[in-house]
Amino acid sequence: MDERMARAALCSVAEPGDAHLNELIEEHGAAGAVEIIRSDDPAEAHSRRWRIRLAAANPEQDLFVCEQLGGRLVCPGDAEWPTTLDDLNRQRPYALWIRGPNDLRYDCLRSVAIVGSRAASPYGLRVATDLGSDLAERGWTVISGGALGIDAAAHRGALAADGPTIAVFANGVDVPYPASNDGLFTEMARRSLLISESPPGTEPNRLRFLVRNRVIAALSRGTVVVEAERRSGALNTAAWARKLGRMLMAVPGPVDSRTSVGCHRLLREDATLVSRTDEVIEAVGAMGVDLAATPRAPVLPRDRLDATTRAVLEALPARGSAGPAQLAGKAGVDLATVNAKLGLLSASGFVERSPSGWRLTKAAKTP
Amino acid sequence: MDERMARAALCSVAEPGDAHLNELIEEHGAAGAVEIIRSDDPAEAHSRRWRIRLAAANPEQDLFVCEQLGGRLVCPGDAEWPTTLDDLNRQRPYALWIRGPNDLRYDCLRSVAIVGSRAASPYGLRVATDLGSDLAERGWTVISGGALGIDAAAHRGALAADGPTIAVFANGVDVPYPASNDGLFTEMARRSLLISESPPGTEPNRLRFLVRNRVIAALSRGTVVVEAERRSGALNTAAWARKLGRMLMAVPGPVDSRTSVGCHRLLREDATLVSRTDEVIEAVGAMGVDLAATPRAPVLPRDRLDATTRAVLEALPARGSAGPAQLAGKAGVDLATVNAKLGLLSASGFVERSPSGWRLTKAAKTP
Repeated sequence: MDERMARAALCSVAEPGDAHLNELIEEHGAAGAVEIIRSDDPAEAHSRRWRIRLAAANPEQDLFVCEQLGGRLVCPGDAEWPTTLDDLNRQRPYALWIRGPNDLRYDCLRSVAIVGSRAASPYGLRVATDLGSDLAERGWTVISGGALGIDAAAHRGALAADGPTIAVFANGVDVPYPASNDGLFTEMARRSLLISESPPGTEPNRLRFLVRNRVIAALSRGTVVVEAERRSGALNTAAWARKLGRMLMAVPGPVDSRTSVGCHRLLREDATLVSRTDEVIEAVGAMGVDLAATPRAPVLPRDRLDATTRAVLEALPARGSAGPAQLAGKAGVDLATVNAKLGLLSASGFVERSPSGWRLTKAAKTP
Repeated sequence: MDERMARAALCSVAEPGDAHLNELIEEHGAAGAVEIIRSDDPAEAHSRRWRIRLAAANPEQDLFVCEQLGGRLVCPGDAEWPTTLDDLNRQRPYALWIRGPNDLRYDCLRSVAIVGSRAASPYGLRVATDLGSDLAERGWTVISGGALGIDAAAHRGALAADGPTIAVFANGVDVPYPASNDGLFTEMARRSLLISESPPGTEPNRLRFLVRNRVIAALSRGTVVVEAERRSGALNTAAWARKLGRMLMAVPGPVDSRTSVGCHRLLREDATLVSRTDEVIEAVGAMGVDLAATPRAPVLPRDRLDATTRAVLEALPARGSAGPAQLAGKAGVDLATVNAKLGLLSASGFVERSPSGWRLTKAAKTP
């Protein structure tokens, strides 16, 4: 079993972010970890439970289903893997199942998580929508959990402004949960990104929602809590943002609103109050000015690119722009590869996103 | 001219809190300062303007008018003078003109300023009223500026809970400004306190409103801004609270509310977010636990009291309580003196306020 297939299998074996499994992977590689679990080494306390799950796992089929959905598996070390996830250390995802045309790593470079109550107030929904659309308009990616209420409003705001937005699922990327957000997810899979640590078909459960929150916090430069009741999952995401050294922001509201109580508690602790998009950008912009700036010139010489990346670069038209599917055909590679390579090319300053697709940067055209 | 009469006169001579006049008073005493101004010493740059005003001043009449209103003049060094005002240093008031039955110094021991927009929203008015009445119920005095909007709501809340509340005027204590708060002021003069740095009859002006704010901030242990537009006088009071080392608190509101913009700015700076009365008390309580606690036993031996104070103490019934007017009659002193001495007796642990008047503390009854 190769490393990629082993990681796909491990996603079915342990709950996401298991520290012990991450240790095994670190020490023996993913395929080595699979071997150890399969061998039922009595020194491995978890092994029995994991061995049963491993026997039932079908990573080939999971990968096939994912590809049928136009999706892909992204593993640590891949060009599309967001290195910010490595801040999670032993709670790092084993791999990510991804649907949607965008490059995950690229989209996360300038990203903000917007989270909050499912039972949001009209005020909270309005603020989340406006924040989502303003951030998208200013070139920031909106990350959230795809839940009812604040999450969905933030995603919808970003889509309305034609910007990238990422939903991090606690279930498989093909499971529309909650069902009433099905239309939203279809649109996001078509125009943006749905991601999950669990293989297609996985159902959500309470534990997965909680561990999922660490991915939302880790992927983004900062988390904005728009509305949160006294006990709210959003406060768990906030705690992860704080723990990971990301900016933690909260939107205030009326003091007599039940759905602002959690935000006010965060603001009495260490969260930064944000009342408009400018203030969010000011806060997360300060987290790493270098990351925020789009490179003005390619940071790598063309001949340092690998063959596939060069093929994708050469597929770009000299004038105008092209979509990923077009580029995949011309370069003779699959869509997932094109997306990954576009991310790399974009981060290195060769290509840039335009309203009608991808195009060469001015610098890349200059010999 | 004696010191008290001189201070009364100086209130008509310079604008409140003039640093140069305070220097003169510090160096030469109030009567000495009057002499210097009268002499038109060419070394005194201000003297000409002040001399003209001094010639026009009529402190005897001001004091007479004030007494007719049931009021009194309180000067630095008097038992009723709140020593917290000395934190203003060279911007200290020369004296305070006071109306109402309460003892100013005593009422300020546990006091919070509640300030905000005149053009308050229904939300802000509701919060200010609730905060005023909850604080009053918990034994805290509410200080504000007697303006329309938040100020009036806070005063009214405190009165509704039958608690002490102090309006610091930018005009004379007999000038009902704004006129629509006339009924409120009448009630406060009857049950609480109206105070001013300017003699009766003084009209307000823009400058006086600003310098008045420093007195609100200095008298209280902390200032709560309930609502404030981007430019609001309340932000000036907030700046004074900060400068004087008092707790600065702000109430959040909807981010799309014009009247919360100033509060959110303060919260992004260094103000503490308060969403309910407990949080206000927690914040100001921490400012000086000693001041907050009512002394359990008299802190002075009875024989160290001056003759008048002892007379007031002896006028108190062995059981039950008595009002200031009753005590004044029995002790053979005027109402202002009774109030001042009750403040002193209370601060020293001999007497305490009860719902029906003043009574001896348990400790004072024990020989």
